[in-house]
Amino acid sequence: MGQKTVQMINESDEFELVGGYNPGIDVAHMQGMGLNDNVKLFSQLDEIETDADVWIDFTVPSAVFGNVKFAIEHGIHPVVGTSGMKEDQIKQLQQLAKEKQVGGIIAPNFGLSAVLLMKFAKEAAKYLPDVEIIEMHHDDKLDAPSGTALSTAQMISEVRGDKPAPKSEETLPGVRGGDYKGIKIHSVRLPGYVAHEQVLFGSKGEALTIRQDSFDRGSFMNGVKLAVPAAAKATELIVGLENIL
Amino acid sequence: MGQKTVQMINESDEFELVGGYNPGIDVAHMQGMGLNDNVKLFSQLDEIETDADVWIDFTVPSAVFGNVKFAIEHGIHPVVGTSGMKEDQIKQLQQLAKEKQVGGIIAPNFGLSAVLLMKFAKEAAKYLPDVEIIEMHHDDKLDAPSGTALSTAQMISEVRGDKPAPKSEETLPGVRGGDYKGIKIHSVRLPGYVAHEQVLFGSKGEALTIRQDSFDRGSFMNGVKLAVPAAAKATELIVGLENIL
Amino acid sequence: MGQKTVQMINESDEFELVGGYNPGIDVAHMQGMGLNDNVKLFSQLDEIETDADVWIDFTVPSAVFGNVKFAIEHGIHPVVGTSGMKEDQIKQLQQLAKEKQVGGIIAPNFGLSAVLLMKFAKEAAKYLPDVEIIEMHHDDKLDAPSGTALSTAQMISEVRGDKPAPKSEETLPGVRGGDYKGIKIHSVRLPGYVAHEQVLFGSKGEALTIRQDSFDRGSFMNGVKLAVPAAAKATELIVGLENIL
Amino acid sequence: MGQKTVQMINESDEFELVGGYNPGIDVAHMQGMGLNDNVKLFSQLDEIETDADVWIDFTVPSAVFGNVKFAIEHGIHPVVGTSGMKEDQIKQLQQLAKEKQVGGIIAPNFGLSAVLLMKFAKEAAKYLPDVEIIEMHHDDKLDAPSGTALSTAQMISEVRGDKPAPKSEETLPGVRGGDYKGIKIHSVRLPGYVAHEQVLFGSKGEALTIRQDSFDRGSFMNGVKLAVPAAAKATELIVGLENIL
Repeated sequence: MGQKTVQMINESDEFELVGGYNPGIDVAHMQGMGLNDNVKLFSQLDEIETDADVWIDFTVPSAVFGNVKFAIEHGIHPVVGTSGMKEDQIKQLQQLAKEKQVGGIIAPNFGLSAVLLMKFAKEAAKYLPDVEIIEMHHDDKLDAPSGTALSTAQMISEVRGDKPAPKSEETLPGVRGGDYKGIKIHSVRLPGYVAHEQVLFGSKGEALTIRQDSFDRGSFMNGVKLAVPAAAKATELIVGLENIL
Repeated sequence: MGQKTVQMINESDEFELVGGYNPGIDVAHMQGMGLNDNVKLFSQLDEIETDADVWIDFTVPSAVFGNVKFAIEHGIHPVVGTSGMKEDQIKQLQQLAKEKQVGGIIAPNFGLSAVLLMKFAKEAAKYLPDVEIIEMHHDDKLDAPSGTALSTAQMISEVRGDKPAPKSEETLPGVRGGDYKGIKIHSVRLPGYVAHEQVLFGSKGEALTIRQDSFDRGSFMNGVKLAVPAAAKATELIVGLENIL
Repeated sequence: MGQKTVQMINESDEFELVGGYNPGIDVAHMQGMGLNDNVKLFSQLDEIETDADVWIDFTVPSAVFGNVKFAIEHGIHPVVGTSGMKEDQIKQLQQLAKEKQVGGIIAPNFGLSAVLLMKFAKEAAKYLPDVEIIEMHHDDKLDAPSGTALSTAQMISEVRGDKPAPKSEETLPGVRGGDYKGIKIHSVRLPGYVAHEQVLFGSKGEALTIRQDSFDRGSFMNGVKLAVPAAAKATELIVGLENIL
Repeated sequence: MGQKTVQMINESDEFELVGGYNPGIDVAHMQGMGLNDNVKLFSQLDEIETDADVWIDFTVPSAVFGNVKFAIEHGIHPVVGTSGMKEDQIKQLQQLAKEKQVGGIIAPNFGLSAVLLMKFAKEAAKYLPDVEIIEMHHDDKLDAPSGTALSTAQMISEVRGDKPAPKSEETLPGVRGGDYKGIKIHSVRLPGYVAHEQVLFGSKGEALTIRQDSFDRGSFMNGVKLAVPAAAKATELIVGLENIL
């Protein structure tokens, strides 16, 4: 994602890349990324000197907590895409952000279409409580359901409460899908597919379907682009891109 | 729609039918509608005596203005599904509703899935301004585009402003659809189809699609059911079901 | 289906209704069906005298065997929509049809879109063996998967053989669906939906989806209309509408 | 496509790459393509010496005719993906192939999902003549409709004949799409989309939809893989992948 972030910033009129941080920096590698000459590169956290407004972080889970702490302490607003931080680490960072009045955004998913799908699904479920989810991914994805599908079910469940799925008799076990508090989830795994999700609502005489397709991980940059100015103004550490939409 | 309204009320635990009004009433006809014995029937507006909270009106355009005026003046909150009232008639009724503090709802479309689609499309367009609309109807529908598709385009246009559609060279005239302020609209007419609409958003590497299907006009009652309690509490005359969602 | 059959024949220029059979006939009931005056009505099988070419039968399973046997023996080509005949009954009728050289058609499903979906799915699976099925029905349908979905899986399996579905780790049991010889089937049950099926094929960099929607049982008549002339010419008893397409 | 072809052959158990031809060959470039040591490289047509069975050609239109002629004359079965050959060039090659009894395949589209879509659409139109086409491409595609959509309409038209589209009154010009002999075609252009096509059939009470998605040009190799053994056995020059399916 580092490469894609650099490209997004370079193509944008609103943002400017002023520095890069990479522990164990490989100058040759960084040079291939299309950085301008005035971009300062750092290989150690404590050496970073910058007047950056925003810190974009797609690093590994093990490094992200230290990075974000450093950023907030130095008045740089973080935009964090790494999932895998622990609940109490996030709380600690939120506390620090509040103290320093340096907010930012942590989001497991910067895909705008996925985030909007979840937001709309949650809202629709208030009026259309009968709902099932179908997610479709490439056949190399081992785990099922996808994290986004499960998050969607959780968000729907918050507003509609528990409601058992209609009674069925399965003549083929599993055919009615997985059950999250009465919301049936179906996971499709096929070659060619990338990452797709559908939420199907049904009601007397009508249906509403919300679908998102991620064809390319580059789509994450659509969300990062929205997050950067929002983070720069934030006075607390927001979790979830949906909370700035 | 009168028959469907009676059925919806009879099936509901929250509502009670206390009266019916039909100019040139045909007692035999009304008896076939499954009314309870305690439902009072009226054939003239000035004879109506009732302590009803809500007035549901799916009558013809020519009668609706007089009906709703009567309802508001008598403290009955109107839920109106007839389209075709004039702009200044609606304003007059809104003025009256404000004076009497007897609000209600006028909506051209009580289909929940269609109203939610429009609401979500408007919201999504803030973040995903590249959008096209496809509506699909039975082949007896003469006019194109559908009213709902046009309304959707208008609502999207309000938030994203003018933005020309991507340049194309049509080798078959019309193939790129109709153009509403840069939003392309495509109308499909096929036997078997009922009433369906899709809004397609695209962005770098991803897509979001919102689709609604109306299989049956009975679906309007899903919206009426929501409108009745909202109308009963309203202190102004609201236009559009989306404004109570 | 009797009423719909009469209507279809009356609306057609190619067919003529010459007789009706209803054990325990109710003349008043039959009169309400819009029959022409020259339609002869019978209430007992052995009283039937007709020069009809084709016998359309949507009766109950218990009566259908006797009916079809009578038809073939009297040189009338049967078009049979009743499912539930036993394997050996069908074989017996096929034998009889061959002897008499009076063919016809027995089909569990006269929905053209469903039959074409199955046919195309079987053909596509030769080239695209990675496939999953999603069927969607109203929430009153108890059994899952639908008969059509299971038939589709069986037909696909005939051409692609056994092929295990991609390995997955279900964190929610059942989320990967039911498994028919490696073909995953997913059943959705939601109010508003009628009867719909999708077959999803995936391959490197591409996908093919075949979908059918039954909005109304009247769609069966599309298939019956095709079956009548085919049956009239048939010299054997064909099982499955796909075999005349 | 050269690189993708090499990769497909290397990953296959059935095929072996024995030679490569590139006028103005750049050895360094070819070495980067992952060729085995025993692959013979040629930079001039008349220097080629090989016992290859099949000649795969994705070259530029100006070179393809000469290449394919050479291949057939030397007993190598061509698989040709270049579009842009002239009608009379193709006829000349077909004549030569017949004489030499060295057949092969020329196809404008090796995408299996697109070719199957066209094949099925043509077949379905026999039974479901009411049909519209929607194609969706990225917003950089200038021409509309796509070549595949137009070919699909032509193939459908061959079987169903002329049939005017249902009468409509367009309140927004073009909204009913382009008209190819009564088949309405709609072209969507949105960022994020790649190359997709839907054929929608409607009939009384039912609908059939065939959809294909090309996410990646690599999908062409699915078709090439099928074409190679078919070409190796062919005794005439076949045009169109659908003719070997």
